[in-house]
Amino acid sequence: MAKAWHLMQRPQGKPTHDDVALKDYDMPALEDGMIHVRNDWISVDPYMRVRMDDQESYFESFKLDRPMDGGAVGTVVASKADGFEEGDKVFHFAGWRDEAVISTQGIFKLPELGVEPFHFLSTLGLTGGTAWFGLMDIAAAKEGDVVFVSAAAGAVGSMVVQIAKAKGMTVIGSAGGPEKCAWVESLGADKCIDYKAGPIIKGLYKALKEIGAKGIDVYFDNVGRDHLDAAIAHANNNARVAMCGFIDGINGEAAYEFKYLALAIGKRIRMEGFIFTDFQDQMMDFYGQMVPMLHSGQIKTRETVHEGLDKTFDAFLGLFEGANTGKMLVKL
Amino acid sequence: MAKAWHLMQRPQGKPTHDDVALKDYDMPALEDGMIHVRNDWISVDPYMRVRMDDQESYFESFKLDRPMDGGAVGTVVASKADGFEEGDKVFHFAGWRDEAVISTQGIFKLPELGVEPFHFLSTLGLTGGTAWFGLMDIAAAKEGDVVFVSAAAGAVGSMVVQIAKAKGMTVIGSAGGPEKCAWVESLGADKCIDYKAGPIIKGLYKALKEIGAKGIDVYFDNVGRDHLDAAIAHANNNARVAMCGFIDGINGEAAYEFKYLALAIGKRIRMEGFIFTDFQDQMMDFYGQMVPMLHSGQIKTRETVHEGLDKTFDAFLGLFEGANTGKMLVKL
Repeated sequence: MAKAWHLMQRPQGKPTHDDVALKDYDMPALEDGMIHVRNDWISVDPYMRVRMDDQESYFESFKLDRPMDGGAVGTVVASKADGFEEGDKVFHFAGWRDEAVISTQGIFKLPELGVEPFHFLSTLGLTGGTAWFGLMDIAAAKEGDVVFVSAAAGAVGSMVVQIAKAKGMTVIGSAGGPEKCAWVESLGADKCIDYKAGPIIKGLYKALKEIGAKGIDVYFDNVGRDHLDAAIAHANNNARVAMCGFIDGINGEAAYEFKYLALAIGKRIRMEGFIFTDFQDQMMDFYGQMVPMLHSGQIKTRETVHEGLDKTFDAFLGLFEGANTGKMLVKL
Repeated sequence: MAKAWHLMQRPQGKPTHDDVALKDYDMPALEDGMIHVRNDWISVDPYMRVRMDDQESYFESFKLDRPMDGGAVGTVVASKADGFEEGDKVFHFAGWRDEAVISTQGIFKLPELGVEPFHFLSTLGLTGGTAWFGLMDIAAAKEGDVVFVSAAAGAVGSMVVQIAKAKGMTVIGSAGGPEKCAWVESLGADKCIDYKAGPIIKGLYKALKEIGAKGIDVYFDNVGRDHLDAAIAHANNNARVAMCGFIDGINGEAAYEFKYLALAIGKRIRMEGFIFTDFQDQMMDFYGQMVPMLHSGQIKTRETVHEGLDKTFDAFLGLFEGANTGKMLVKL
């Protein structure tokens, strides 16, 4: 029988195993226009925490005692839908489970790009796409810019570092601890600040001095709060901020006291929130840019892989404990 | 002898009369390329407070024991500059004084638009221009949008209200006290929130409910802090914020605890700081839009006028005490 992770109660603050259960569930019958898919790879992402709350958001809240969902890559085992055949590899949203019967709306067959299927959950999916569109479109980063990126050892951040370097930018990252920082610098970052070693605003000042830059032109924001405040304090005129994540605040931490936000006026700073799914019509352009950089090795990927459906929730919890370097995935 | 207001020491927090002095000063000799001008109108504006500090900013700091400057309109009494004759009315930056001898760089003869000269310090100058470019360009406001504007009884705010209404938008303002609110509504605002009567976030919620709107599309921000937080909390998807002022924080108030900034991501909110002087190449277009609205009465102006050079500093202090309704001016 098919199994799926169910949300059993809404988490208070940080999620725990009491909030979820891995349970058998009844799949619908395979009807016209549907496919039966067996999952090969499941993605866990920070945004899923938001979906566990019962609140208005840009993603639907998970329903209680029902399978959760999210990005996954699987193999078609039976099809009653035109254009899909047994053996096809597909991207779909019936994650958090081993098997699913789903309509083909909003899903796609993986294009033949000569890459491993899991890349469509990472480099060529939510994480790589978030990095690409945030950096190149929202922040309008260009050659020669000084780019600051927080959570630079994370899934999205490590992509931002590499894309920025491939595009001829100077990159300062931040990450927690010397090991992660070493990895970020090994990806090409000109400097990585260990935010656990002191206030980020001082770290950023020092990093800019060391690389001989006056300030930052672009901030790719994965955490908000002290990092965003520091970025504004050290921004050049006309800097752009791609607001991608507030992971520090996602589990109910207190409000943050901004000290430097008013400087955004005189510096003509543009801050803009964005969501990857708004860029679906530009995916072929995106693949066209990313796949050659993947093949040439300009962009290296690292995955933290948990094996087995039963490890999915641990993988998800690890996102909030800094347990992943690069993209967090579950292999079935 | 010519007199000018001098900055004698840098204010700690709120400026006081101890920080300044009205003193005689020596004007330079009238040489080729220069004009001698007698001021008719002087503008005082919140941004001048920033110039009193010794810090990096988008405007030069005022020098100690030297005449301060700022926007003014005056009459040429002698000219050694091509294109300027005795009797010409000019806009220039040698404010805070009765007379000045200045180069003609960066100054202009008032175009013949059939309006009173002081309008070039208000409706057709810094205040009107800030309102126009902030609303129409930075916030990309369009017909049908719900616009929220703080300090709506102030110089810039009252212009934003009227431009927005003239362009077919729904407008919610905020102002301090029932009298100011009544004036804002008399300008056409659909609703004005008295921010002194309770938390702005509740006031905004109530105002939106009363006018039957789900949220705001545009926030023209003249104050930052609690108003900005409330605007983000009640923004629609893809809302735009024109960041124009943080007057609440300008005199050294404590940092503000933002609670809702993270919502900017999912709502795809764009926040952008701007400075009127960046739009100098679009001034003729701006006059072309504003002057007909002035003549038709679609845009009403109100000035708080202080008479005499000796009242200039009191006029300036009044900006921070909510003493002005509309544009604060000094008539000489």
